[in-house]
Amino acid sequence: MLYDIHSDKWREECGIFGIFARQENVALNTYWGLYALQHRGQESAGIAVTDGSVMDVQRGMGLVNEVFRHALPDMPAHIAIGHVRYSTTGSSLLRNTQPLLVSYSGGQISLAHNGNLTNAHEMRTELEKKGHVFQTSIDSEVIVNLIARSTKQTVEERVIDSLTDVQGAYSLVIMTENKLIGVRDPHGFRPLCMGRLGDGWVLASESCALDTVGAEFVRDIEPGEIVSIDDKGVETRRFAETDRRAACVFEYIYFARPDSVIDGQSVYQARLSMGRTLARESGFKADLVISVPDSGTTAALGYSQESGIPFAEGLMKNRYIGRTFIQPEQKKRDMGVRIKLNAVTSVVKGKSVVMVDDSIVRGTTSGKIVRMLKEAGATAVHMCISSPPIGYPCYYGIDTSARKELIAASKQVEEIREYIGADSLHYLSLEGLYASIGNIPKQTLCNACFNCDYPAEIPCETDCANNKFLFEAKNK
Amino acid sequence: MLYDIHSDKWREECGIFGIFARQENVALNTYWGLYALQHRGQESAGIAVTDGSVMDVQRGMGLVNEVFRHALPDMPAHIAIGHVRYSTTGSSLLRNTQPLLVSYSGGQISLAHNGNLTNAHEMRTELEKKGHVFQTSIDSEVIVNLIARSTKQTVEERVIDSLTDVQGAYSLVIMTENKLIGVRDPHGFRPLCMGRLGDGWVLASESCALDTVGAEFVRDIEPGEIVSIDDKGVETRRFAETDRRAACVFEYIYFARPDSVIDGQSVYQARLSMGRTLARESGFKADLVISVPDSGTTAALGYSQESGIPFAEGLMKNRYIGRTFIQPEQKKRDMGVRIKLNAVTSVVKGKSVVMVDDSIVRGTTSGKIVRMLKEAGATAVHMCISSPPIGYPCYYGIDTSARKELIAASKQVEEIREYIGADSLHYLSLEGLYASIGNIPKQTLCNACFNCDYPAEIPCETDCANNKFLFEAKNK
Amino acid sequence: MLYDIHSDKWREECGIFGIFARQENVALNTYWGLYALQHRGQESAGIAVTDGSVMDVQRGMGLVNEVFRHALPDMPAHIAIGHVRYSTTGSSLLRNTQPLLVSYSGGQISLAHNGNLTNAHEMRTELEKKGHVFQTSIDSEVIVNLIARSTKQTVEERVIDSLTDVQGAYSLVIMTENKLIGVRDPHGFRPLCMGRLGDGWVLASESCALDTVGAEFVRDIEPGEIVSIDDKGVETRRFAETDRRAACVFEYIYFARPDSVIDGQSVYQARLSMGRTLARESGFKADLVISVPDSGTTAALGYSQESGIPFAEGLMKNRYIGRTFIQPEQKKRDMGVRIKLNAVTSVVKGKSVVMVDDSIVRGTTSGKIVRMLKEAGATAVHMCISSPPIGYPCYYGIDTSARKELIAASKQVEEIREYIGADSLHYLSLEGLYASIGNIPKQTLCNACFNCDYPAEIPCETDCANNKFLFEAKNK
Amino acid sequence: MLYDIHSDKWREECGIFGIFARQENVALNTYWGLYALQHRGQESAGIAVTDGSVMDVQRGMGLVNEVFRHALPDMPAHIAIGHVRYSTTGSSLLRNTQPLLVSYSGGQISLAHNGNLTNAHEMRTELEKKGHVFQTSIDSEVIVNLIARSTKQTVEERVIDSLTDVQGAYSLVIMTENKLIGVRDPHGFRPLCMGRLGDGWVLASESCALDTVGAEFVRDIEPGEIVSIDDKGVETRRFAETDRRAACVFEYIYFARPDSVIDGQSVYQARLSMGRTLARESGFKADLVISVPDSGTTAALGYSQESGIPFAEGLMKNRYIGRTFIQPEQKKRDMGVRIKLNAVTSVVKGKSVVMVDDSIVRGTTSGKIVRMLKEAGATAVHMCISSPPIGYPCYYGIDTSARKELIAASKQVEEIREYIGADSLHYLSLEGLYASIGNIPKQTLCNACFNCDYPAEIPCETDCANNKFLFEAKNK
Repeated sequence: MLYDIHSDKWREECGIFGIFARQENVALNTYWGLYALQHRGQESAGIAVTDGSVMDVQRGMGLVNEVFRHALPDMPAHIAIGHVRYSTTGSSLLRNTQPLLVSYSGGQISLAHNGNLTNAHEMRTELEKKGHVFQTSIDSEVIVNLIARSTKQTVEERVIDSLTDVQGAYSLVIMTENKLIGVRDPHGFRPLCMGRLGDGWVLASESCALDTVGAEFVRDIEPGEIVSIDDKGVETRRFAETDRRAACVFEYIYFARPDSVIDGQSVYQARLSMGRTLARESGFKADLVISVPDSGTTAALGYSQESGIPFAEGLMKNRYIGRTFIQPEQKKRDMGVRIKLNAVTSVVKGKSVVMVDDSIVRGTTSGKIVRMLKEAGATAVHMCISSPPIGYPCYYGIDTSARKELIAASKQVEEIREYIGADSLHYLSLEGLYASIGNIPKQTLCNACFNCDYPAEIPCETDCANNKFLFEAKNK
Repeated sequence: MLYDIHSDKWREECGIFGIFARQENVALNTYWGLYALQHRGQESAGIAVTDGSVMDVQRGMGLVNEVFRHALPDMPAHIAIGHVRYSTTGSSLLRNTQPLLVSYSGGQISLAHNGNLTNAHEMRTELEKKGHVFQTSIDSEVIVNLIARSTKQTVEERVIDSLTDVQGAYSLVIMTENKLIGVRDPHGFRPLCMGRLGDGWVLASESCALDTVGAEFVRDIEPGEIVSIDDKGVETRRFAETDRRAACVFEYIYFARPDSVIDGQSVYQARLSMGRTLARESGFKADLVISVPDSGTTAALGYSQESGIPFAEGLMKNRYIGRTFIQPEQKKRDMGVRIKLNAVTSVVKGKSVVMVDDSIVRGTTSGKIVRMLKEAGATAVHMCISSPPIGYPCYYGIDTSARKELIAASKQVEEIREYIGADSLHYLSLEGLYASIGNIPKQTLCNACFNCDYPAEIPCETDCANNKFLFEAKNK
Repeated sequence: MLYDIHSDKWREECGIFGIFARQENVALNTYWGLYALQHRGQESAGIAVTDGSVMDVQRGMGLVNEVFRHALPDMPAHIAIGHVRYSTTGSSLLRNTQPLLVSYSGGQISLAHNGNLTNAHEMRTELEKKGHVFQTSIDSEVIVNLIARSTKQTVEERVIDSLTDVQGAYSLVIMTENKLIGVRDPHGFRPLCMGRLGDGWVLASESCALDTVGAEFVRDIEPGEIVSIDDKGVETRRFAETDRRAACVFEYIYFARPDSVIDGQSVYQARLSMGRTLARESGFKADLVISVPDSGTTAALGYSQESGIPFAEGLMKNRYIGRTFIQPEQKKRDMGVRIKLNAVTSVVKGKSVVMVDDSIVRGTTSGKIVRMLKEAGATAVHMCISSPPIGYPCYYGIDTSARKELIAASKQVEEIREYIGADSLHYLSLEGLYASIGNIPKQTLCNACFNCDYPAEIPCETDCANNKFLFEAKNK
Repeated sequence: MLYDIHSDKWREECGIFGIFARQENVALNTYWGLYALQHRGQESAGIAVTDGSVMDVQRGMGLVNEVFRHALPDMPAHIAIGHVRYSTTGSSLLRNTQPLLVSYSGGQISLAHNGNLTNAHEMRTELEKKGHVFQTSIDSEVIVNLIARSTKQTVEERVIDSLTDVQGAYSLVIMTENKLIGVRDPHGFRPLCMGRLGDGWVLASESCALDTVGAEFVRDIEPGEIVSIDDKGVETRRFAETDRRAACVFEYIYFARPDSVIDGQSVYQARLSMGRTLARESGFKADLVISVPDSGTTAALGYSQESGIPFAEGLMKNRYIGRTFIQPEQKKRDMGVRIKLNAVTSVVKGKSVVMVDDSIVRGTTSGKIVRMLKEAGATAVHMCISSPPIGYPCYYGIDTSARKELIAASKQVEEIREYIGADSLHYLSLEGLYASIGNIPKQTLCNACFNCDYPAEIPCETDCANNKFLFEAKNK
């Protein structure tokens, strides 16, 4: 049985990578690219390659270095795409690994998807009515069937055609025998950027993957843009307009790596600003600022800089946390936090601390950390969260808890503080969050998880009652 | 690198099994059923199960006991189907394992296939033109797409509809949420039989699998018949007529297990008769009759009984032959036969022997065995083959060599004898073969591999030139 | 959980192999040699090699092809030894795998052992008293410590010295940096033979392993002989005399491969004679002679030849029986025999049969087979066993049941017949057995399992009460 | 092929853990304890347990969660010991995993060792002369043989006896059927501490492991002390005096986890002080202080606090760095640093930075990091090392490079600065280091790697010439 060490965080569902380069080992570059995107998905990985005629894919459950422990797709190739994914555990879900690779009337096509279609169920039902079958439960299979059905001539037109009716979040890398295609949905929910590697081109969810393979960042793919790369170079086209850009604000808060730059905004600088703003908003006095490592550290540094309260490492993280076997009996004793984090007694003993974390989902882990600090001698724990309270699920590619599990959906801030046992609790205000992501206009961000303002239709399949409530909430 | 220990035999491509039983552990019964059918395919295995609403499948590369070493599909279930398969090695071919499991407009459906569609390529192209995609290269995916496209109401009608235009060999087990369906193509190329297990029902490629799970043999599924099993019992329907039954004669010669009974003919008795007929036809005099174990043994016993020459075990087989690692350098020394077989010197030394084998494909192994016997002191080796010379490939579900690799396609019997170094060589005559399979009228057997009389259209994709020759040969 | 498919047979505990050859890939030859000896042990395997200075060993749990699936010991080498072993399952017993490899004052030495020391416990205790430690529970560790303690000069003298006080069964292959040594205990319990491979030399438990690697049989190692092989050739010495040669008679009955020749006696011919003698002794009349495959087949052929009753394959064996996963619930239903064997109805229906098997241990499997044949329509089953009743455990290297589990220890033949449900039951007489192994004087065989005449001291550690009884039995 | 991601750091060779507790699952606690000590060894792991009569051990290559992925030693037990180890890769080295488990005249004993005996070779040769054999190449096997040879009565006396002549570094946990024993060598090279868990006791290399299992820190084991724990409680004894305590100073600089307290000195506070001292000593002016994560971070925070220069995260570390497959071709391109670290451009662009790291071994990685920062726009990189130049190998349990690979052994500071391309380079002075580890008198630390003042004899086996030089250097 696997113990989920990140169990009290929302999870990015996928990272994608693509490369077109005649002078490179494209499979190996994709391997390193996925390695750099591993934080976006740790449950499965896959790489598809082509040499212009044959296409092959290798996929498996596990981390990138586990799936490709013995070998990479072994053929000469000049195009490759890759995918990392988080998914609920289950050996049968091997068939849900990406990239998808299919043959259709136009030849072979491989596709990797980051995001979540909000009308996938309807589209799928529609396609099934037309006689299509589905072997997986991933949205990409819907898109690939739509591409195959399209009566357009070029593959780019087919892709655009396929996206006409789908809604929701999708950043895609698509590979044909001779092209690498990148697509970002009209809202721009999930990131996608492009880089140059020698004479070739790279697409990646985050710029940190470009850095890792030594590619130079060129630009972000625009919402509603499709880029097509082949030997003649890069061709771009806008396939849809949108009245509402809606880049996921949580990429800046938690999902993305701090060394990435998304849509012109440095993730690191955004987090630093969030910490500074938190300091101004909360005004807590304390001996030290500490963070819940690693995701809270940058904001904690910002808090320290703004407040003048010294930053210290009050909590140490076990660097070897992985997928860990645990026995049922042990679950009762709930060692979860202790094996992952340890309080540094010599730092916190006799000290009042401001503790910065990025978010609170269910609040159970936060409570344990506060208790751990108190047991180590902290005289007061003032908790600062570098995001507003999360009150609503995400439907655009994040693995979120059900609404009833979100502590902020049913409890007021003071109740939450009491629940986790902190001496104080401050959430970053929504305005403060906007201000911290200064390079991006606030109306172009998606903040639905904070304010229920869903920029696109949300699905009505699984929890209609809940959604009904949400819609009412939204429209009240 | 794997060394193929059976490299000089044709290979059955698949075995299938299905069970509907409310009082049984259906996954476990399917496991044992596949175990009994393992000789029909050793490269991959899979089991799909359903409890009436959820459907799950577990598939992998390897033998049944390897794929399911750690677990069987773990859910309560009352229907299951399973599949074993031979295929060319290659990790990427994980996606070609069966049973296929898809969702479509009618719900979920799982399918396992034994046989080969001769117009799969055309059907697939046709479906691709209509917008379908294919994730595997197996024929079953064609059938399942046709089922999904059908506008018929019931699943049985859909299945029948899907088979209207497909040609070639197919024995199928199909599972829906509440039915187990068995289908056999109008020619009846590959076997399929039905048994009773308590209150439930079992379908299997061969009756030996019924014996293994303790089911009672009920009857063979008829060519052109579809049976549908649910809580109300078994319903049967004839979905196609045929002017030409064409059960594979090689099942009796080599593929099937001797303890199976196919279409009313005991495989054991057929082989025994082949041996008796061989004795009469060849009239060889010798001190001993020996066999190439294990497949030649039953015919050798028949030869011994008819000729009065005592049977002895002149060759011993290593019972632990499995998938064996071999180093490239070793291939040169060609230890293949020696690690699999060893001559029993005390038996053959100073003796003339009749050696019975079931077939000769390329002839290389036969030559090595003859040499091994001579080195052990055999004074003469009279080789008897319990089938006519194989001159033509099979297109109905057997992994055959290309025609140019078939020694009998280019050499006369005397040339073959010389090539393998035997003192005499006799092939069973076609008439002798017919006579040996006494329960089955000769016109209802497929003997195309011996006489080029293909009972159904053969594909024209891969080796048209060769096929052209065949067609001419056929019509001359 | 593993289901033991051979659960009602005694088990040979080990096979050993050694090679000294400058022109060969010695690791690969050892691999193939162990492959041929796999029937002597399926639970673990190991190969040790040396290039004259460095020594390396690779060992693991499983069949030879599993342990060396990915690689053989990877270094240039001209000496190698190998070992296959049966042992009670248990992951912790990885440390009990052989060959053992140690460094001592004389350099490095590696050792593989077939047999069982009857005073291992005492020797071990003695060594422990002198300050030695033991990391395994295998006898070889006792021997290697004795070698290390010896004050003699040469390694051969050290080996001889080490064997002065040990009692029981041991065939050994020993490797130093520049020598390959073979040893057989003074009683000659377990076999060991020598062959020539090009300019090099091979040692093996059975001659079938020589055949497999293409070596020519030279001779058996004599009881009480030590051979030492290096670049100068083979040197031999007799290190002990014995008043009692005692080669295991069960090697001829069941353990060895029929294509092996041991101490000048062909195993095949011995089994054939046992069958002939059985026919004469039993005088059963029946329609057919059948065997329990594969071990009973040769004797059944002998029975058929002598009696004139035709031999037929009345039982088919699943050729893919391996280590098989089975669920606890299934054990209750006891599918054991059915998944391994199946009656050929068309053969046995309406027929009276003589069924030949090599031995009966607990009798449970025999009962199931008789029932299976009756259910398939056999009108009578006359059981013939090609060995006398087994009444006493073996202490010389065979994994035997405790005495209380031996059906013949507590039941008379007629009671056993009734227990297994056979119509008749005949065991080969001891004199008949001796007569069948014609090349070997009866007084040089060990038959203790039949008549309690233990040729060497037996251990008194585990079941003294039982042994006391045995000794009394022996001396009454 | 594995790419060693820490290739330019010295490595602690082992971590050890022991527990005696009747109310706990001791195997599971040991598992978690080793998890917390994983930074001390990532190549193999093992756990031995006993229930008072039976003793069992499970060992394997890999991380703790890999070795025990499927199961922990599965038996009721109240004592357990565990070990993690770094070692040169090699499948054959499975036999070198710890804990060692042996039987000897006194019963069974299991032992795990952190440290390195400097006269192991001599002791081993001595034992071999007395007839002992060695199955591994680990020092623990020497100790266990000495224990077995001892003529003393109690196990504690035997252990003490065994240590009389061994020299070098050893912290040991030893388990008998009913005792848990902890030993620390007279110099106290490697740490070992004791904690209380309910009614039971825990021993561990570092206090962070006590925290992880919820044990309360009691005290450090003293150099030259042996503690023996059984149902009657803890008994302690001083088995040797020393005129020279010599705790490894590098534990404070790099090896130990910052949340551990060793010999009364918080590792975190020591590192913080090193940073503060570095700031005073170097006096560098810059826009930012950054660290090479994670080991340089605490010292960088100290530097920032003392200097007033703000701390920032200028380098991001990939949190999923593990054992990584790499293709030979890739080594040429030397992606090593890029896949592990990435510069945060938005932080360092246009800024001068002080970069704090803990040590420089060969200097190759440092050079790449400096180049990476410059490419990201840093205007100046002033490198500060929180230790003096490493000029001499360690012989007391650290996997160090040969002296010729140590850049500081052959280059002056200015030459090193030039080699790595930094604008400035400052190493912490030895006095500054002493001052930073304020709780521990400087004469009780081992600083041999900095000043060649080896507190105990060093081995003369492998590189005598080099050592000769060292001794001369030492005595000049």
